[in-house]
Order: sequence, then C-alpha cells, then structure tokens
Amino acid sequence: MRILVLGGDGYLGWPTAMHLSAHGHDVAVADNYLRRQLCREEQIDFLFEVPDLNQRAALWQSVSGYQIVVYIGDLCQWEFVAEVFADFKPQAIVHYAEQPAAPYSMLNRQAATLTLQNNLTVTANVIFGAKEFCSDAHIVKLGTMGEYGTPNIDIEEGWLDVEHNGRKHTFLYPRQASSLYHTTKIMDTDLLWFYVRTWGLRVTDLMQGPVYGLFTDESEKDQRLLPFFNYDEIFGTVLNRFVVQAVAGYPLTVYGKGGQTRGYLNIKDTLNCVRLAVDKPAETGELRIFNQFSETFSVNDLAQKVAKAGKKLDLKIKIEHIENPRMEAETHYYNPKHTGLLDLGLTPHYLSEEDLLEMLEFVSQYKGRINTDQIYRNVKWN
Amino acid sequence: MRILVLGGDGYLGWPTAMHLSAHGHDVAVADNYLRRQLCREEQIDFLFEVPDLNQRAALWQSVSGYQIVVYIGDLCQWEFVAEVFADFKPQAIVHYAEQPAAPYSMLNRQAATLTLQNNLTVTANVIFGAKEFCSDAHIVKLGTMGEYGTPNIDIEEGWLDVEHNGRKHTFLYPRQASSLYHTTKIMDTDLLWFYVRTWGLRVTDLMQGPVYGLFTDESEKDQRLLPFFNYDEIFGTVLNRFVVQAVAGYPLTVYGKGGQTRGYLNIKDTLNCVRLAVDKPAETGELRIFNQFSETFSVNDLAQKVAKAGKKLDLKIKIEHIENPRMEAETHYYNPKHTGLLDLGLTPHYLSEEDLLEMLEFVSQYKGRINTDQIYRNVKWN
Repeated sequence: MRILVLGGDGYLGWPTAMHLSAHGHDVAVADNYLRRQLCREEQIDFLFEVPDLNQRAALWQSVSGYQIVVYIGDLCQWEFVAEVFADFKPQAIVHYAEQPAAPYSMLNRQAATLTLQNNLTVTANVIFGAKEFCSDAHIVKLGTMGEYGTPNIDIEEGWLDVEHNGRKHTFLYPRQASSLYHTTKIMDTDLLWFYVRTWGLRVTDLMQGPVYGLFTDESEKDQRLLPFFNYDEIFGTVLNRFVVQAVAGYPLTVYGKGGQTRGYLNIKDTLNCVRLAVDKPAETGELRIFNQFSETFSVNDLAQKVAKAGKKLDLKIKIEHIENPRMEAETHYYNPKHTGLLDLGLTPHYLSEEDLLEMLEFVSQYKGRINTDQIYRNVKWN
Repeated sequence: MRILVLGGDGYLGWPTAMHLSAHGHDVAVADNYLRRQLCREEQIDFLFEVPDLNQRAALWQSVSGYQIVVYIGDLCQWEFVAEVFADFKPQAIVHYAEQPAAPYSMLNRQAATLTLQNNLTVTANVIFGAKEFCSDAHIVKLGTMGEYGTPNIDIEEGWLDVEHNGRKHTFLYPRQASSLYHTTKIMDTDLLWFYVRTWGLRVTDLMQGPVYGLFTDESEKDQRLLPFFNYDEIFGTVLNRFVVQAVAGYPLTVYGKGGQTRGYLNIKDTLNCVRLAVDKPAETGELRIFNQFSETFSVNDLAQKVAKAGKKLDLKIKIEHIENPRMEAETHYYNPKHTGLLDLGLTPHYLSEEDLLEMLEFVSQYKGRINTDQIYRNVKWN
C-alpha cells in the first residue's frame, strides 16, 4: 500500500515510516522540521544528534533495501500539499503533522497561535488533499486521549450513547481537554467528523496516550535510525524525561499530588496500532475511533517505577513533588475503555523493569550530553 | 459601560452597536469590511446601499447625540487587536467578528480555509486580548444553535447531565454541526471553555438561531442606519431571502422536504438578548450559555407564512421544493430549551403577519434593485 506519513521527521513519525516500510508498504514522509526549529528557538537539545530526513531515508535504504520517499515542506501551504498528494497518490495517510506538546501550546501567545493555526490548517489541508487527489484514501489521524480529559464517568471508545428524557442519541464522546494543544486535537476530531459525514471520507482517529521508549525493531540495525529524544519539560513525555532525570541525578519532578492518571504505551505499540489500523481501513463514510494505550499509570506510579529500576543501577534517585504548573485534576476517576485495537490484533507491550533498565542504560551513554538546565521550564498554565 | 463590538459593520453588529449606544453605553466598533469584500468577490449585491462605518457613526451621532468610536482593521492581526484593546479598554466585548455563512464555508477550499482561519484566529485573539489588556472584561460571543445540530434528544441550554454506568458527569452539550461554518463555532466554544477554566475569563456564549428582519428602534430615525441586507443563498438568511424572492416573483426555494426546523428570532430580539447579557455579566471563571431564539419554525412554515402575507399584497408567490444542496436531516426531532434569556428579562418578539407585511412593503421599494440572477447559488455540500 502507498502510505504517506505526515510529520515523518517526528518522534513517532520516523519510526512509523520505517515500520510500515519494513512491513512491505511503499512509504513516503513529509515534514518541514518544525519540531526541530521550535526546539532550537526554545534552546532545547535532543539527547543525541539525529540525521535529517534525507540522511535517515538513505540510511534506512542501506540497512533494509527499502526506499522511503522524502518530501520537505510545510503542510500549511496548500501548494505543497497538492504537490505531494498528486505526486505520491497515497492510499493511506498517517497524519502526525502537528505541534504535539501541551506545554509549548501554553508557553505564550505566539506559541498558542502557532499551535492553533498549524494544527487546524494541516488537518484541513489533509482533508482537502484527500478529497481532491485520493478520495478513497484512508486517513489515520493521531489524536490524543487528552481530548477526553478526566470526566467522572467511564471513557468509552470515541462515542457515547446518551439516554435523556426518554429518548436516545449516540454522540461523539463529549470532549474537554486541559491544554490548548489538546483542545486543537478536539477541533481536529470535530473537523474530521464533519467531513466524514459530508464527503464520505474514511478516517481512523487514534486517541493516543503518552508514549514512552525509543527502541523499535527497525532502529536495531543502526543507532542513527533512532527517533529524536526530548528530556525537557516542554517536549519530553513524562516517562522519557524521568529516565533522563534519573541518570542525570536530577530529582524526578512530580507535578502536585501526582495522582494524574493516563493511559500509556510503548513506542512499539504505537507502531503496531498504526499498522493494524492501516491494514484494516475504516469504511467509506466512517469515523472509526480507537483509544490507543496499553495500560494506565499515575505519575506517582511512573516515578516509583523509575526509582526502583534506577536503584538496581545504583543511581541515587529522589522524587520531588513540585507545585503543579498545569491546571488539571491531581486525583480523579479514570476508566477509559480500549478494546478496539486489541480486537484488531494488538498484543500490548506492557512496561517492565527490563524496559526501564534498557532505557536507563542507553541514556547513561549520553549522560555527558544531558544539560540539566534545560529540564525545568516552568511553563505555567495561568 | 465601555463595550467593544467586534464585527461592528455586520448585519447584527451595527444594529447592536447603535442599540447599546442608545442605552447609554460607551460603544466602539471594529471591523475590516470582510463581509463586504466577500460579497464583492462573489458578485453579491446588498438590497440597498449601506454607508461605511465612519459614515454610519457620524449619522448616528447626528440623530442620537451619541458617539460610536470606529476602529478599522483586521482582528486576525494581533497588532490591531492590541491597539484597539489598549486604546478602548473595554469592559464588555461583543464578538460577532466571524465569517458567518454556512454556504460560503462550503463554497470551495479557499473559502473553507478563510472561514476556519479567520474565525478561530479572531476568537483566539479576543481571548488573548482580554487576558492581556482587560482580564475582567465580559466576552459575549455569538455562537449558533447550529452547533448542536439536530440530535434525537432534547437540546439543553449549553450543558448536558449524563448518567452512565452508575456515575454522573455534566458535559458541554455534545455538538455536531452540519456545515464547516457551524463547525468553527463549535471550535470557538471549545476554545472559550478551555480558557475560561484555565484563565478564569468571564464569557457568555449565545447559541443564536437564524435571525430575520431589519428594523430596530435605532434605525427608525434615518433609513441609512439600517443594516445591510442580503437576499442571495450564500449570505441571506432564509426568511429575509424568502421575502425578497416573494417581491421579485421568484419562487420560494425550499431545500428538499422543508421539514428542517430551527429556532428563529427577530433582529430586535438579538439586540435585546445581547444587551441583557451585557447588563448582567457572567461571573469570573464562568462560561454561561444561552440558547438565543424566540420560536421554532420549519422551512415549510416560513415559506407558507410569506406566501400567505404576500397574497394580501397581491403578490403571486410559488413555493418550489428543489434538490437539497446541503447535507442535513429534512425531517427530525427538535426540542431545544431556551429559558435562560427569558429569565434575564427577554420579552420575545414573535413573528407576526404584520412583520412580514412590513418587510414585504419595505423590500418592494427596492424591487428594481433585486437581481434575481444573484439568488440561486447552488453551493453543494459535497
């Protein structure tokens, strides 16, 4: 299948591109290096250097024999979208091409505006591009579990049957997010759902939880194929960041009470979920929604797991509760369903102490590169 | 109170500005004439010429003695927003500054992109402007009943109490709109609700139904103070358009079965609703939502009412059901609640035959200006 991975330079985009390529698909990636640019602007270094997309595609071809086509450009620009869609004629589009960090979206007005405009414009352009150039293509959109927030009832998989005053209706599950970034993902869902109903697009919206890890089967052959790895509070996801903090001797910084519970998954599961969704597309006129995570943890759980694993490596790890810069419930009910991807065939990879030890040992190689001044960012929600 | 009316050149913006001014408020308007520009581009004429904002403000001052401050510029541009907010220091902001037509948003990719970017960027800039320059100001945002769509259960006023698997949660009423324009209004609500919770803004979101009419107390003194009046299928609201079609001897074009039911209101009620909301602001940290309409009609109801009134004026009126260019339910359950504004003191103006006769007679003065080629636009939803 011809699969176009938008945001193909990203933490998940590049591993996804390799994974789909390794599974026999014809893959192209598109990216404008926005994430690298934002990191540069905010003085954020990756844990290790990462080659550019053309270099990575060449490396991948040398180790796998498979070609990944590279398009460099801004998907906010219709001319670029039209060029890529007309040239590659995708049968599936995996859409990661968004500003993906909640703290970045709360940094200041300019960052908020960039997040809002970039994320919505790219999603709209993907919809218009599919309509114009490949109306039967399956759009696989990366959403987030954060769209649901933390309601006091069970979180269903995308939809909610409501009985009210003796009548019934099935709604998109009502969404209420706790950052501007997550709110733009709600808007994406609204936009996709409108055009699915109106134009008969076929869309899978993956409500993904926070991802951790960096090793995948495809990067085993050459370390330069690993995705970039953030350990700062803006772009670093919590478990990845805790691992780096543990290695650096920097306290594991838990925001507030630490009871914030989310559905997490290993990067390997992300790739498998996306591939399963691509292999069995949504129907024409269907918005198919999966809750994409493997297990739930509180932030306290994660800090304790990292501390326990770190102890085995003789790391001195301190857990520190700091004032929560975010506006979020620090203790809450959380019971999200997630059976759709299991039904498609996912075998989840559950977080083990071996995973943590592997990450801690890997990160230790780069201990000298960790700039602890870059971790704490104090991006306040209000 | 110092009240800033954004989109103050519009069909509702200008009458609102005069109405608030007449009630003793210090009023400023901001607009970039976007609506006039879009009409020009699409070869759409207003029923009668309308002076520009500076001319209207001068006219208003000459008949009322009250000054309305005029700012001309694009609210998508932060520099303009900052200048206006810093200069006028509003205590209330009435936000109409959006591309307001469903058919325009479905015209083509460019129009869709303009609608999405303009509406979201202005709303975001209003939020950022309030936060930076007047964090206690009350934002009165014009939303639309179309955000709710036509669910099979009662439409509550903004919020829905859900009981699910033995637990309870109150959600924003789940929204599902039937045009891109209406979908941008859902996104506005999501955006406002996020920042209300995060920054403690005070916001009233008015879920308004389609408005008809053009006469208000303030325009009685000089006909040049009337708002602009569209009779085309893109920007003309249905009852206004039917009145012009009746006068022009053009069939009243009902889309499909005509059972599409919505909550309508007279332009006089719009002004009263906005004034009542301004006079009794939402609390700090409150998103207050009112369903703003006075009575429900199907499109068939409206066509029949116009035909009946027209008969009294010896107009030959034919009602024609044409293929529905939109994607919408043509018969559906519709029971929206609307008690909030009545509780604030609204005395609704119900549509009477006198209203229709007054409109028909007024429009007849401009019969020679009606260009019937401009009515039918055939903007197809898919």
